[in-house]
Amino acid sequence: MSDPVARLAGITASFRAHDEPSGDFGLIGLAVMGQNLIMNAADHGFTVVAFNRTVSKVDRFLENEAKGKSIVGAHSIEEFAKKLKKPRRMMLLVMAGPAVDDFIEKLLPYCDPGDIIIDGGNSHYPDTNRRTKYLSEKGIRFVGTGVSGGEEGARYGPSIMPGGNEEAWPHIKDIFQSISAKSDGEPCCDWVGDEGAGHYVKMVHNGIEYGDMQLICEAYDIMKRGLGMTYPEMSETFGQWNKGVLDSFLTEITRDVLAFNDDDGKPLVEKILDSAGQKGTGKWTAINALDLGMPVTLIGEAVFSRCLSSLKSERGRAAKLLEGPKPNFTGDRKEFLANLEQALYASKIISYAQGFMLMQQAAKEYKWKLNKPSIALMWRGGCIIRSVFLKDITHAYRENPDLENLLFNDFFNKAIHKAQPGWRDVISKGVQWGIPTPAFSTALAFYDGYRAKDLPANLLQAQRDYFGAHTFQIKPEYANDKYPEGAYTHVNWTGRGGNVSASTYTA
Amino acid sequence: MSDPVARLAGITASFRAHDEPSGDFGLIGLAVMGQNLIMNAADHGFTVVAFNRTVSKVDRFLENEAKGKSIVGAHSIEEFAKKLKKPRRMMLLVMAGPAVDDFIEKLLPYCDPGDIIIDGGNSHYPDTNRRTKYLSEKGIRFVGTGVSGGEEGARYGPSIMPGGNEEAWPHIKDIFQSISAKSDGEPCCDWVGDEGAGHYVKMVHNGIEYGDMQLICEAYDIMKRGLGMTYPEMSETFGQWNKGVLDSFLTEITRDVLAFNDDDGKPLVEKILDSAGQKGTGKWTAINALDLGMPVTLIGEAVFSRCLSSLKSERGRAAKLLEGPKPNFTGDRKEFLANLEQALYASKIISYAQGFMLMQQAAKEYKWKLNKPSIALMWRGGCIIRSVFLKDITHAYRENPDLENLLFNDFFNKAIHKAQPGWRDVISKGVQWGIPTPAFSTALAFYDGYRAKDLPANLLQAQRDYFGAHTFQIKPEYANDKYPEGAYTHVNWTGRGGNVSASTYTA
Repeated sequence: MSDPVARLAGITASFRAHDEPSGDFGLIGLAVMGQNLIMNAADHGFTVVAFNRTVSKVDRFLENEAKGKSIVGAHSIEEFAKKLKKPRRMMLLVMAGPAVDDFIEKLLPYCDPGDIIIDGGNSHYPDTNRRTKYLSEKGIRFVGTGVSGGEEGARYGPSIMPGGNEEAWPHIKDIFQSISAKSDGEPCCDWVGDEGAGHYVKMVHNGIEYGDMQLICEAYDIMKRGLGMTYPEMSETFGQWNKGVLDSFLTEITRDVLAFNDDDGKPLVEKILDSAGQKGTGKWTAINALDLGMPVTLIGEAVFSRCLSSLKSERGRAAKLLEGPKPNFTGDRKEFLANLEQALYASKIISYAQGFMLMQQAAKEYKWKLNKPSIALMWRGGCIIRSVFLKDITHAYRENPDLENLLFNDFFNKAIHKAQPGWRDVISKGVQWGIPTPAFSTALAFYDGYRAKDLPANLLQAQRDYFGAHTFQIKPEYANDKYPEGAYTHVNWTGRGGNVSASTYTA
Repeated sequence: MSDPVARLAGITASFRAHDEPSGDFGLIGLAVMGQNLIMNAADHGFTVVAFNRTVSKVDRFLENEAKGKSIVGAHSIEEFAKKLKKPRRMMLLVMAGPAVDDFIEKLLPYCDPGDIIIDGGNSHYPDTNRRTKYLSEKGIRFVGTGVSGGEEGARYGPSIMPGGNEEAWPHIKDIFQSISAKSDGEPCCDWVGDEGAGHYVKMVHNGIEYGDMQLICEAYDIMKRGLGMTYPEMSETFGQWNKGVLDSFLTEITRDVLAFNDDDGKPLVEKILDSAGQKGTGKWTAINALDLGMPVTLIGEAVFSRCLSSLKSERGRAAKLLEGPKPNFTGDRKEFLANLEQALYASKIISYAQGFMLMQQAAKEYKWKLNKPSIALMWRGGCIIRSVFLKDITHAYRENPDLENLLFNDFFNKAIHKAQPGWRDVISKGVQWGIPTPAFSTALAFYDGYRAKDLPANLLQAQRDYFGAHTFQIKPEYANDKYPEGAYTHVNWTGRGGNVSASTYTA
């Protein structure tokens, strides 16, 4: 383009494009996900307009990856907008946070009523609630969409979870469902719900992803330190698991990661620093679970495990001061590995059951209509947690969309009963060997707590009434005139305290 | 007071009081905690002015509990302010939230520069940060203080944790340290730190209280369902434990609660609904831990256990559909109970270690100077978690205020090593019996994770780099030219993906 004549020709072409916009879809943000999503859309016959804040990146992209595809570049927001057909479909794939608001403000002067702005980043759903409302008042339709699948998914078919202003859906359905992954011919993309519902479901997806990864790590630790397995043996085991109930993207890549050697022929993963970050969607899921009062314990433990991992140097000092038992496995390894597979499977069932409990509660709390079978289908393919397992979940919710809990479904009910003995065996062994299995353990504790008609919280309520006059209710089977069902009672446990209950003050 | 002459005399006396204020201390909010705190202060020779939004409560209080004590009533905010010596010391014990702001606004017109407003409720520390700043700009000194001890504590000596505008401290130190509990002659009250530091420490206190109560409930469940013990047997066991390392207020009241029979001679606690609320300080602690990235897993599980308990009717349905093993204890009961005591003790050590890790991180993050030995001392007496155990913690931090972790202290290091075999035995048994021990289990998982020089998070980092180009670091011992220490590396695991790392987008 250094030749002035060629440059002039380019500008002329550009002017022509202004008059007759050719762009079906615009995308801002040319990091790996953005580039790949653009190429994916182009492969499906859409003309995509690409823009990036650092404009040189646009040219570099056009001259390399985008070459020969129906991808046009824009060097300003104005040009970007002018190159798009109306209603404009403009997707942002930029860092969640202020950058999204910045770009919205930059786009607004070039928007016409009915245009659609799509935020495809990992925005926090309250921000999406706010933006949907803000833009709706300006006549602009806002969509917040989860996109999962990593760079490969973005390139060849991600899972897409859009929510926001539903008026936008007919205009983006075709392109979104074209570029999304397919599962048994069905697109892994459907309208999720109002406001931030799409980003909410993506957040829970990521929380579950945290959980799945933690479970795999615990299995790996048990294999490595508990059974003393080699990397090729571990890789082979995950390879076998990938043919059974654990058949999934994460199992598959674990097989590959464990088999990947560094230049010196040694497993690269062994050399990688065991310190993981946790600021983001996993943390948000755990916080939201606490806020909604739902016991999503597995994701909670997965997030805390990352926190603990990041205290690397402190752990180094602790390792020198704190002792524990040594693993002493003596039984049949094949049998134990079958138990380990069942432990992972059962824990995973609990994690997904908890995730759906959370979404169910969110739908109630935020007045969203969340479609459970369609969420399961969206996660079935394309995304990081894609698995055969999600096919069974889709099936369970299609069979009964009002299913109260995944564990009440016949298939999963049978599965967890079958898995129990192995699950309990693995956790006991980990406890005796000094190998931590926080996610396996919390999953089992949840199972045993959830199926307990009576939990020991009666004692807790008595304690609270004892020291703080917090009152308690009586179990329905013991209700009588003195303790009517549903009434809040305070008892003078000591004979000393007053009869004033803690109506306005909570200690 | 229906006699007009008597009423006139009352008014005259009231006017006289306006001219020469006699009140050392004013308190607004006459629920159980407020009333008891007033009587406590009066017992220590202070003249207290009492006010309540529902004014009739003031008269009822004056005519009953307050009769004959140095307690005067106020029937309006104006009267309340006029009856107080300057600088006025005015404490609010009202519901945390908007009521605190309301009363502050109502008090302001009657305040003089230098006056002190104290919020003794369970306010969230960010609110206290805000209020300290807001009132400081108006020349008013604001204090947010934790008060713990329930109704008994408030009456006879609570633990008091004040923070905020430090200029207020010399003016309230005498009264606060007089009315507070004493431990070996030292007051369980000291200045905590700037802004919301006092309420923050109270919040963590409450989180730890959640944990302690959950641990006791798990022990009770193991005794009841695992060993089939009777209520008198269980009460006796807690009574014995109260003479050893678990000597504490909560152990003591558990002994009493388990022995408390209803009119029909049956244990009342068995009849109490096993459904506990969790909206409040415990939840805030868990959320704060997630925000600060500290693995405070035990409080997290305690909060989630309350959430699970509250799903009472759903659990009833689950109990019919989900099966598990039956407890089959056959060993020596006395020996097992000793193990159970050690399991509770070890888990408690972990919980406090985690709580102090959190406060340490908060001090760093919020730039507060938190004095660890003095926090331990404040919790040593008066409050709900008071115990002999906290004496040992006080000792550990006095010995070394910079102690990195409670587990590194010699006393606790020895204690946890001694407790280990029993701790592991109890958890294994719970797992095999189908009795949930989420808090015991997460405490042990933390211990085993914390003392692990290498955790399996290396695999997690490899997975994240595989599917999302998130990059990883190398363990220092494997650093070389290709992988320099501290550098963030992306590897092309599949040979297919690009070399673009996820610099601006996080999937």
